[in-house]
Amino acid sequence: MATTDDVDAEADTYDRLVSRVTRLRNLGAAGEVLSWDQQTMMPPGGAPARARQLAAISAVEHDLFTDPETGNLIAAAEPETDDERALLREVGREYDRREAVPTALVEQTTARASEAMEAWRGAREASDFEQFAPHLEDLVELKREYAAHVDPDRDPYEVLFEEFEPCLPLERAEAVLTDVRDAIVPVVDKVRASDIDPSNPFGGSYDEDAQEALVRDVLDLLEYPWDRGRLDTAPHPFSMGTVFDARITTRFDPEDPVKSVFPTVHEFGHACYTLGLPEDDYGTPLGEARDLSVHESQSRLWENHVGRSRPFLARLRPLLEEHLGVAPAVDALYGWANRVDPDNRIRVKADELTYHLHIVLRYEIERDLIRGDLDVSEVPAVWNEKMDEYLGVTPENDAEGCLQDIHWSSGNFGYFPTYSLGSAMAAQVYEAASEGVGITDRAREGEFGPLREWLRENVHGHGKRLETNDLVREATGSRFTADAFTDYVTEKYRSLYQI
Amino acid sequence: MATTDDVDAEADTYDRLVSRVTRLRNLGAAGEVLSWDQQTMMPPGGAPARARQLAAISAVEHDLFTDPETGNLIAAAEPETDDERALLREVGREYDRREAVPTALVEQTTARASEAMEAWRGAREASDFEQFAPHLEDLVELKREYAAHVDPDRDPYEVLFEEFEPCLPLERAEAVLTDVRDAIVPVVDKVRASDIDPSNPFGGSYDEDAQEALVRDVLDLLEYPWDRGRLDTAPHPFSMGTVFDARITTRFDPEDPVKSVFPTVHEFGHACYTLGLPEDDYGTPLGEARDLSVHESQSRLWENHVGRSRPFLARLRPLLEEHLGVAPAVDALYGWANRVDPDNRIRVKADELTYHLHIVLRYEIERDLIRGDLDVSEVPAVWNEKMDEYLGVTPENDAEGCLQDIHWSSGNFGYFPTYSLGSAMAAQVYEAASEGVGITDRAREGEFGPLREWLRENVHGHGKRLETNDLVREATGSRFTADAFTDYVTEKYRSLYQI
Repeated sequence: MATTDDVDAEADTYDRLVSRVTRLRNLGAAGEVLSWDQQTMMPPGGAPARARQLAAISAVEHDLFTDPETGNLIAAAEPETDDERALLREVGREYDRREAVPTALVEQTTARASEAMEAWRGAREASDFEQFAPHLEDLVELKREYAAHVDPDRDPYEVLFEEFEPCLPLERAEAVLTDVRDAIVPVVDKVRASDIDPSNPFGGSYDEDAQEALVRDVLDLLEYPWDRGRLDTAPHPFSMGTVFDARITTRFDPEDPVKSVFPTVHEFGHACYTLGLPEDDYGTPLGEARDLSVHESQSRLWENHVGRSRPFLARLRPLLEEHLGVAPAVDALYGWANRVDPDNRIRVKADELTYHLHIVLRYEIERDLIRGDLDVSEVPAVWNEKMDEYLGVTPENDAEGCLQDIHWSSGNFGYFPTYSLGSAMAAQVYEAASEGVGITDRAREGEFGPLREWLRENVHGHGKRLETNDLVREATGSRFTADAFTDYVTEKYRSLYQI
Repeated sequence: MATTDDVDAEADTYDRLVSRVTRLRNLGAAGEVLSWDQQTMMPPGGAPARARQLAAISAVEHDLFTDPETGNLIAAAEPETDDERALLREVGREYDRREAVPTALVEQTTARASEAMEAWRGAREASDFEQFAPHLEDLVELKREYAAHVDPDRDPYEVLFEEFEPCLPLERAEAVLTDVRDAIVPVVDKVRASDIDPSNPFGGSYDEDAQEALVRDVLDLLEYPWDRGRLDTAPHPFSMGTVFDARITTRFDPEDPVKSVFPTVHEFGHACYTLGLPEDDYGTPLGEARDLSVHESQSRLWENHVGRSRPFLARLRPLLEEHLGVAPAVDALYGWANRVDPDNRIRVKADELTYHLHIVLRYEIERDLIRGDLDVSEVPAVWNEKMDEYLGVTPENDAEGCLQDIHWSSGNFGYFPTYSLGSAMAAQVYEAASEGVGITDRAREGEFGPLREWLRENVHGHGKRLETNDLVREATGSRFTADAFTDYVTEKYRSLYQI
């Protein structure tokens, strides 16, 4: 039985752990600011110093996090509340994983990935998979080694997937992905056969300043809090930050304003999650977003369920008129904003429907590569077969086929699925929110407070207190499935394409 | 005698030290990026997280730098070249100093300074020194304690001065400051008696965008490399960065474009130093700027010796015309850019001449406070007496007297002198450069390459290889004195004010 003295000593250990973790989380947050700067503000000459600054932060953070002292504190801490138990669960899981992998292997993989990325660029340029193949083989091998260090007895792909989704069982994820695939393939077939093909209702060229003023007004409309954020441009839009300062970036397409509006709304969704995290828990896992799929669910909820709806587009229309001098009919906007292009072969250009077939294809290939069920040399052929099977098109060459994405060249296996899991989760969460009176309808019409509050209460505000399945169940009342999403896309595209 | 094995072991120790130091320097550089962001980009809401991120970087850097392992590596390293000896000298000095001071005292001082700064703001608002006095007493005491930890047997002010000027003997600094004071006081008297009083030749109000375009053109004129830098606005202009990425900030006065041009040229001078550091030594003391006085010598050289000269103003004139639609005669510009205001009581608004009397006054007071020769309660009276003695004016109240600067409230004693030392060094360096054929004349007329190269070769490129006195002697051929500066200001103001 613990005496008073023991209790103090325990409390002290827990507090020391929190203090240690908080310091390291703040180092990580500093690294994020440096990355933001690199992508938005840094002059090109700054790259060599920035790489070393980021490497220093990451090395120091790694050394201190995996120091045995962290493990000792975790082992000695005796949590007394649910919050303390949740924090300890999260830190403990991260420690066990990171501590299991030798630093030398991490460094070797980073160095190897850096060469592989160079090779990938060259291979894509030349559309020659052979140039990339030996690098991909090495990375697959290194990641298998990595997985074996974490747990030699489990499926290595499952282990890698947990790098991005530490508490969503792969089995659940796979069930969702398979249901998504099986629901979408027939819809794409029907869209391809449909006579309807929405056209670009803009037809002009719009300068960047006018488009920036437009998206700033869109963010105003969404009640983005400018005192806790900012908007900049970046080649690849992203968002980053903390509950105190969650920033958005976007880019502009001179021919198509929709291509800056929706990425902006998407990044707003990420920022909205970050801004809804519990402020008092800043610097600990309890103040952090649950993992990638949940983050992506928030961006896609705002982008697709709110942003691409007719009522929201009706609110966008006067802004288009004001800033760009063009005001397409709402139906024309809706068609264009939701147009499906079954002939597109490039994931990053894909629409809301076909996108997920690109993801499932990558998931199936990377899973089999890591499990050793597929040889690297077979990737181009399998890629093209699956493209034909799922989307009914075949890439002209490897550059627009299996060489199009950077992820594998940087050693990321297990990342791709999180995109589609996010969409599925977005639909399930949005459906649950819509059961509250007027919450989602009012959001589409421009009154966002109730939806934001609902999301904060049911998703954002938990931080990492709940594991993914529990978070979805608490927020929606049922376990995580693809049902809401497949219903949503089936109905949406049935109606739009009259199929 | 060292065997081959011993030599390898030694080399290894030196390399391990460099690698450790480099990692920590990169952490420091990351902190600088965060500070830059805070002052230029960060939304106001971000402050709480930013403070914690900066504190984490600084705590981790401090812990790792003062770790006994650093001391062991320093003790075991056997440098073999001049460069290695210089690096070891710099790291060793820093280690001895930082290791000598208990972390608890550093933290206590930081916390106390934070309260003192609040109190100082209130006291300045109320123009009531009494409100600030107890805080100042505590800080003086804490800094005396600090000095005693570093070296209980030496003058505590000398020890504090070395925080900013680790290798410029205070005796030399004091000789320079005294000579500056004694030369300037009579010149100010004569200026006061002169009938000449240059007036503002602008007379309009100029918007920020036009002024920004102007200073960007000024930076183009100076050949500021935009691929390694950027210009932004900040409430208090500063520069920061690395040899790869040295950024400038400025601010704008609607009534007086000169007030943005010269601060910009000043910050350009700092950036020019940073950009001239040896790239290969990035991350070690050999790739770092020598201390504050040398840095300030570079900013003031460009601002005052180049920027405020007639030939440079003749090049500025068409830019003023282009961007602001106003083109004062060169003589009118010269008079206004160099105007002396002996009635001004505020350091940050002071001209090139009277500025140094503000500095000497502060130096004498802070030196006596730290030495225990002056009581905090005497500060306002001594301040006012010295103002009268040096400048012939008396502040109306403490707000525009001894409460005007933030430095003491943040615990900085020994910092003020570096401003005037920088001006004196600027003049000496500029004079030496002018002995090369056409170097300085060509710079004033807009051909900056030769001056920049001369500075890189004689000042910037050394990094911290030379100690301050040696750097000045190598660059100028003589020891550091006030002579060049006193000659320069005496002649300049004699001619301008016909005295």
